[in-house]
Amino acid sequence: MIVTPWEVRGKVDYERLIREFGTQPLTEELLKKIAGTTGKLHLQLQRRLFFSHRDLDTVLELYEKGTKFVLYTGRGPSGHVHIGHLMPWIFTRHLQEEFGVRLYFQMTDDEKFLIDDDATLPQTRKYAYENALDLIALGFKPEDTFIIYDVEDMDLLYDITLEVAKRITYSTAKATFGFQDSTNIGWIFWPAIQAVPCFIHKKLTGENVPALIPAAIDQDPYWRVTRDIAQKLGYYKPAQIHCRFLPGLGPGGKMSASEPETSIFTMDPPELVKHKIWAAFTGGKATATEQRKTGADPIVCSVFQYYVYLFEEDDKKLSKREHKCKSGEMLCGECKKDLVERLNKFLKEHQKKREKAKDAIEKYHIKRFS
Amino acid sequence: MIVTPWEVRGKVDYERLIREFGTQPLTEELLKKIAGTTGKLHLQLQRRLFFSHRDLDTVLELYEKGTKFVLYTGRGPSGHVHIGHLMPWIFTRHLQEEFGVRLYFQMTDDEKFLIDDDATLPQTRKYAYENALDLIALGFKPEDTFIIYDVEDMDLLYDITLEVAKRITYSTAKATFGFQDSTNIGWIFWPAIQAVPCFIHKKLTGENVPALIPAAIDQDPYWRVTRDIAQKLGYYKPAQIHCRFLPGLGPGGKMSASEPETSIFTMDPPELVKHKIWAAFTGGKATATEQRKTGADPIVCSVFQYYVYLFEEDDKKLSKREHKCKSGEMLCGECKKDLVERLNKFLKEHQKKREKAKDAIEKYHIKRFS
Repeated sequence: MIVTPWEVRGKVDYERLIREFGTQPLTEELLKKIAGTTGKLHLQLQRRLFFSHRDLDTVLELYEKGTKFVLYTGRGPSGHVHIGHLMPWIFTRHLQEEFGVRLYFQMTDDEKFLIDDDATLPQTRKYAYENALDLIALGFKPEDTFIIYDVEDMDLLYDITLEVAKRITYSTAKATFGFQDSTNIGWIFWPAIQAVPCFIHKKLTGENVPALIPAAIDQDPYWRVTRDIAQKLGYYKPAQIHCRFLPGLGPGGKMSASEPETSIFTMDPPELVKHKIWAAFTGGKATATEQRKTGADPIVCSVFQYYVYLFEEDDKKLSKREHKCKSGEMLCGECKKDLVERLNKFLKEHQKKREKAKDAIEKYHIKRFS
Repeated sequence: MIVTPWEVRGKVDYERLIREFGTQPLTEELLKKIAGTTGKLHLQLQRRLFFSHRDLDTVLELYEKGTKFVLYTGRGPSGHVHIGHLMPWIFTRHLQEEFGVRLYFQMTDDEKFLIDDDATLPQTRKYAYENALDLIALGFKPEDTFIIYDVEDMDLLYDITLEVAKRITYSTAKATFGFQDSTNIGWIFWPAIQAVPCFIHKKLTGENVPALIPAAIDQDPYWRVTRDIAQKLGYYKPAQIHCRFLPGLGPGGKMSASEPETSIFTMDPPELVKHKIWAAFTGGKATATEQRKTGADPIVCSVFQYYVYLFEEDDKKLSKREHKCKSGEMLCGECKKDLVERLNKFLKEHQKKREKAKDAIEKYHIKRFS
């Protein structure tokens, strides 16, 4: 298992990540506290797709006492967005609505340029714009959403970046991110830039509030470094809530940017979605006859995970589907057909909203006031 | 002898620097070529205060064939400017006038913040503004002068900075600048930013021309790295012309930022100038009687160097002064009195122009068009 900000490989053991990264599991008590504000727990909490955190308890306690927080998440625009990317964003939108808080969203077009030999700046800047459309399509409130495009908005970030960079030695960066002598100096500097949105709210509004970062757990190393210096700079330590990765459609849940057939992208046309789901790895048996007799295994099935993560909100129906799969009553073909329908319905809607987002995109830019 | 971009200590051996840095001496042939355009050679060339270069010959050949160049120099705004800082700027203004070329001037308020534990950003940004007044007071043409304040203007620099940073490994940066594990990641990144003004003219105008950098030789390591990557990015290698350091007023020509009495600052009042020159280290003897008999040594005298570098433009008069010193005809008191008068006359004028510069400063800002 390899889980770094730049690479996720192998079967991910989430319990082990909690231990190795030194984060906290999401407890029943914390979930109750959240439900105290949001009413019913969000699907992604109830199913423990968000499973780990740092300082979420502190943020909730402050919130109860009247100190708000801001949400911060982001995207490395190396290509188009897939369904797995949308998952934490959908949860983030939920938090924005329920808690009535701001979101700062960082498009790291500079980072993606620095870490990939073949990337060009026009490319990563174009994808930043494209990916922003997907974000906006999810229904974020413009008045509470501030998208930062690193390359374009560096003037806004640079002073805080310098304050952060001055307090991180090469030694710390090397130990945290595994930098080597062959790493370029832009990449080495970059962690300072990812820290800035944790702190920028104070610069813009004068209010000192903590940031809560919903994101996949591979980003955790950044926040370890940021947490170490936050208080020296007069800010709260950023809190995090970590989610699992939506498994890919390949064998063993493999998903890979170099194998686009292992993910469903938001711009995929219906026929391609059908083709990908039809070719997906499942927990099915070699023959229909065998599967009718002994049932299949939904736990290892990439198609079933799509229902768990996003496409079956009703717990009872999900449970029924699981049962029918295990018992052999429902074969993979039917289950795949259902998912293709749901996916294509979702994507049709999404693509429509994404198209509309083109007219609204400036309303979300952090520099819209300037 | 230690000569790095951050520290100059000991007696500087300029011949050795040419060998160690691998630069070229300024030859008679090159000087003639310059005089071909400028007419009479500038004092700082004639007296070999500029003594070394890289690719100056290439730049002059291109110029003869109709390809202009741009000038680039800068200042690390860690405090007020002294006479030694003005020296290469005065020469730069001369080149601007004679060759009719643009100057890009970088105020590295970010670097000075990063390399000094005690520095704050408001401080270095304030000094950048103060130092710009001194630059403008020297008579640079606003239409051909573009001052870059790094922190304020990072949006203009950032895309080229990324292109540069991506092509410098930590290994190269470490070898060139002596970075260590304890160096902060901002400092490690910073050489990429110093490279940018070499290339920015193309971004602003579409013209691809070389940059010629008049500066003290301690900055050479930056240009070695920049030269290595320039052509990969589609630019000319930046050329340099290197000057000596104006010796300080302390024993052995010592000058130190922590000992302000070893330098004359542009804002020093007349009485302070008098006091500093009166206390300066000279080549004089223990008693007036002895000096009248055996003469003094102008070579080691910090006061005499002020005449050589800036305050006696007439070669014959300089030679006469040297002779009178060596012969014992003129004692140190008289020589110091003369220098105090010249310095205070110069500073009175400079301070007046510096005051006027406050109204003109925006006309010199690189972002004046935006």
